[in-house]
Amino acid sequence: MTLDDTTTPATAAAAAYAAPVSAEQRAREEELVARVVASFDGAEDERLRILLQSAVRHLHAFVREVRLTEAEWAAGIDFLTAVGHLTDERRQEFILLSDTLGVSMQTITVNNEAHGDATEATVFGPFFVEDAPHVELGGDIAGGASGQPCWVEGAVRDTTGAPVAGARIEVWEADEDGFYDVQYDDDRTAGRAHLFSDDDGGFRFWAVTPTPYPIPHDGPVGRMLAATGRSPMRASHLHFMVTAPGLRTLVTHIFVRGDELLASDSVFGVRDSLVKDFEEQPAGTPTPDGRDLGERTWARTRFDVVLAPGG
Amino acid sequence: MTLDDTTTPATAAAAAYAAPVSAEQRAREEELVARVVASFDGAEDERLRILLQSAVRHLHAFVREVRLTEAEWAAGIDFLTAVGHLTDERRQEFILLSDTLGVSMQTITVNNEAHGDATEATVFGPFFVEDAPHVELGGDIAGGASGQPCWVEGAVRDTTGAPVAGARIEVWEADEDGFYDVQYDDDRTAGRAHLFSDDDGGFRFWAVTPTPYPIPHDGPVGRMLAATGRSPMRASHLHFMVTAPGLRTLVTHIFVRGDELLASDSVFGVRDSLVKDFEEQPAGTPTPDGRDLGERTWARTRFDVVLAPGG
Repeated sequence: MTLDDTTTPATAAAAAYAAPVSAEQRAREEELVARVVASFDGAEDERLRILLQSAVRHLHAFVREVRLTEAEWAAGIDFLTAVGHLTDERRQEFILLSDTLGVSMQTITVNNEAHGDATEATVFGPFFVEDAPHVELGGDIAGGASGQPCWVEGAVRDTTGAPVAGARIEVWEADEDGFYDVQYDDDRTAGRAHLFSDDDGGFRFWAVTPTPYPIPHDGPVGRMLAATGRSPMRASHLHFMVTAPGLRTLVTHIFVRGDELLASDSVFGVRDSLVKDFEEQPAGTPTPDGRDLGERTWARTRFDVVLAPGG
Repeated sequence: MTLDDTTTPATAAAAAYAAPVSAEQRAREEELVARVVASFDGAEDERLRILLQSAVRHLHAFVREVRLTEAEWAAGIDFLTAVGHLTDERRQEFILLSDTLGVSMQTITVNNEAHGDATEATVFGPFFVEDAPHVELGGDIAGGASGQPCWVEGAVRDTTGAPVAGARIEVWEADEDGFYDVQYDDDRTAGRAHLFSDDDGGFRFWAVTPTPYPIPHDGPVGRMLAATGRSPMRASHLHFMVTAPGLRTLVTHIFVRGDELLASDSVFGVRDSLVKDFEEQPAGTPTPDGRDLGERTWARTRFDVVLAPGG
């Protein structure tokens, strides 16, 4: 096979394992790829050129590898059209598509390279809200959200082990019915807050024990999941965003050990290091801060955060 | 590098030429690809599984190769959202995107493998209409479309050289202002017709000499072209679709030799074998069928069609 200088190793590899085609046919396909790639040579923005030329190479490699039929191409156009038409101010079906194909998580992964013992990042999700209420250390972020009370404590450190005082910790979660506050039609604020670590980097607060919920699955992405036997459920999780001067901002979740959805999280957000023990406490067990929960059970967990050096 | 059995050569190659990352980081990225690919293992429809798993591998290879930033990911979501919102019954911006990235032409190419001397296919385009008028051999397909008269003749044969009598030949084209009949608000039919080859496979008709025109470029695809210094213009062309029992249907265009847009056709439809001489005839030159064109110039071209065996 002759490779000109616009053919990438990926393209060559794709050609090598694609369905067998004649040398003449392969040359026609490769010539087309080279022509499309070259059409972007004149882009003034170097980064835009790199992105589009790479996208072209991978799109064409896909079409050639699977020998995409014209009916399949048309079905793909129809699918994207349906995704576009469902997307509006309140529903972002393209993000859902990116999430369910693991593209969002891969983008997070390449932008948060592993750094020693630093805590791993995961997807941001669509439910973060700026200016969530401030709570004191030991306060309750539930704000009326339904669910089992859950005590969360931990400490923020840097990769040298030094405590990070005054780190801003944003926390948000769904209630036990599987909904975030912003998914209700009223303008409630619940299940979200921010707090600051103490002089030893420590933090502690009450929340509700995370429960599983489905991503919106009444649209084309839901149909894709159903057609392929995939569940729309997200593993139970509690969102964190931790920021501190000079350190890399961490966007992550913690997950509940034992949740049967850990292996099939619909957006591929789970990392082993983020799975934590949530210890069930029988009713009447004294709470760490003396809060009286009456006859209710509660849970407790610990999440120690290690922030990587800033960029 | 350790490759598990879900890693394709393309993925491996992409990893090999991506920006250098640590072995630990590479392992995290590859583990994620494998997890997403495996999520589709349960699809009952084998072909759907193949398509989605290949799409996932190529999407992830793209993200990893270019080290897509989160801002670039968000810009991509916004771009697709804009494409989706412009698309409606009359405007298909996703097809335009596919066209301008050469994906439509690559799909045509893989579905019309080179077959000896058979005439090459090219893109269908959005302007074909069923039930276009019938014209007799030697008739005029212009139907009032503006433009220089153009005599088109040729013959339809199979790959053994045998004439194909009674082949159905659909022809359609834009007028000299660059618009197809269906782009006007009235319900005119112009610049389109069908006819049948004679006993020797021959055909002949009057049309108008093709002229260049831009694809719709007032949307996100137009902005992509402008941002990368690409022209929205299509090279001048005349559409053909030729069908005959037992032979592969041919969808193609012919292009005008000397057209300066041949090398930069915005949808990559040009193939060398489809570029034809359109010979300019001075006013007063006798026409092949004795038609009196008065003081008008005219043009003539020849297109011999070879149909591949049917599937």
